[in-house]
Amino acid sequence: MRLGLFDGGRLGLVRGASVLDISAFAGEPGPAGRLDALVRRGITEIPNEVVASASALSIDDVVWDAPLPRPGKIIGAPANYYDHVDEMPDTATILDWGFFLKAGSSVIGNGGTVEIPYTDVPTHYEGELAVVIGTGGRDIALDDAWNHVFGYTCLMDITIRSSEDRSTRKSFDTFTPLGPTVVTADEVGNAGDLMLRLDVNGVQKQSSSTSKLIYGIPELIAYASSVTTLEPGDVIATGTPAGVGPIVNGDVVTVTIDTVGTLRVDVSDRRAIPHADRPGPRTALHR
Amino acid sequence: MRLGLFDGGRLGLVRGASVLDISAFAGEPGPAGRLDALVRRGITEIPNEVVASASALSIDDVVWDAPLPRPGKIIGAPANYYDHVDEMPDTATILDWGFFLKAGSSVIGNGGTVEIPYTDVPTHYEGELAVVIGTGGRDIALDDAWNHVFGYTCLMDITIRSSEDRSTRKSFDTFTPLGPTVVTADEVGNAGDLMLRLDVNGVQKQSSSTSKLIYGIPELIAYASSVTTLEPGDVIATGTPAGVGPIVNGDVVTVTIDTVGTLRVDVSDRRAIPHADRPGPRTALHR
Repeated sequence: MRLGLFDGGRLGLVRGASVLDISAFAGEPGPAGRLDALVRRGITEIPNEVVASASALSIDDVVWDAPLPRPGKIIGAPANYYDHVDEMPDTATILDWGFFLKAGSSVIGNGGTVEIPYTDVPTHYEGELAVVIGTGGRDIALDDAWNHVFGYTCLMDITIRSSEDRSTRKSFDTFTPLGPTVVTADEVGNAGDLMLRLDVNGVQKQSSSTSKLIYGIPELIAYASSVTTLEPGDVIATGTPAGVGPIVNGDVVTVTIDTVGTLRVDVSDRRAIPHADRPGPRTALHR
Repeated sequence: MRLGLFDGGRLGLVRGASVLDISAFAGEPGPAGRLDALVRRGITEIPNEVVASASALSIDDVVWDAPLPRPGKIIGAPANYYDHVDEMPDTATILDWGFFLKAGSSVIGNGGTVEIPYTDVPTHYEGELAVVIGTGGRDIALDDAWNHVFGYTCLMDITIRSSEDRSTRKSFDTFTPLGPTVVTADEVGNAGDLMLRLDVNGVQKQSSSTSKLIYGIPELIAYASSVTTLEPGDVIATGTPAGVGPIVNGDVVTVTIDTVGTLRVDVSDRRAIPHADRPGPRTALHR
């Protein structure tokens, strides 16, 4: 199944070139949206009678929102491809770093606009496969990990390159484009070998396979759940391969992942300020 | 007002030596609890008729849960006291680091047990004043910041000392003791000058005043909201002063903050494993 949110939170099921509105089946949306509610209820199939009675829209007429507008946790995998480690100043990998967290409030959907925060600090794209947790748990065993995956979606882990902690550098509002839909695990096939590419203005910048992940999907789930209880609807951003680079005002960025889809965003600097003008430093207590 | 959760999520209002059960007023709890629901509704006063009709318990008979069991965001302030910076290997401060995030699922309440994850990596206490956000917002101005505070509570930012990203080191389940209650801003007085002390087994280890914060409460709110939209019920851990150190099995740790209260937890190593035995490294892709 391909499931997404559209038109301000309605739940859609993609069938060929149509989107079926199955909002009534999912019930009232919580703060994390209708798809989150469905994941929490452990629903992995839509009954035939719901499909049969749903109204259909053309997929070309649908504007997708983020499928999970406010995940409980967004767990990121730092330095999880060796070719990306090799292009960065630090030689450490996920084996040293563990995971980082991004704010749930940084999520935007397909067609959204990434807002560059600072005029004088680079903002970079990072294209990634995202895992959506279905059944939660703590201390999930490596050989049970796949059973905890609800599905997959495309993600950009937008990041400023500066001295700040990763959580800050990656949590600005609009810094986690997600979508366009969530594709259930059964429809994706072998998520351990999916090709991923990211383009800026139509020019390919990143291209790799999830077979090159240092911590593969089972390791990410087993390791993260050895630290923190995973919950339905939590998102794991699996890490980015080589080729990261800056984005600037007016750029169009797309991530395409085999069988998962294509996520597209615009870039704007309308809110950008000099880094020195951020609130805090001028009135802070100085030695 | 002093508000807390007790007996599996009931909402209590402290009046002298009594706790009034005002659960009915707060309505059904959401995933983040009844107090969170009240904060989200912007309620800062309990009507007299609710207080008059509430059943009363002796405060000595009440077991407090965490007042906010699952904050939407827990924003941490790294290196926010100069005396703590001076005891650590790194000379950077919050001016360089910005903030970090802790998982909401790491919260436990007063009387809970902190679980040490590794037998061979130190686990440290850090005592802190926590700010509970009332009215949310983005780009909150410095001189408007106090208006966005709902109240305060005691927090321990439990941390392992290792190579991992702060989010990992600080997000293990049980690593954010919070409580025992939330005290509204009007009752706390000047939160910019509160004495804080942390004791391990009755021996004082940390003692300082929030007047020594590098980013004071207004700077923390203004800076964090320049990055990420703050939402009602979000928690800001304001940082820890000098004197951090290890905790081991059987320790009892307390944080006491003027007018806010005393938070107490136990420490256990029943789940501790060697760091090398964590899942991930053994089956990871190696060069």
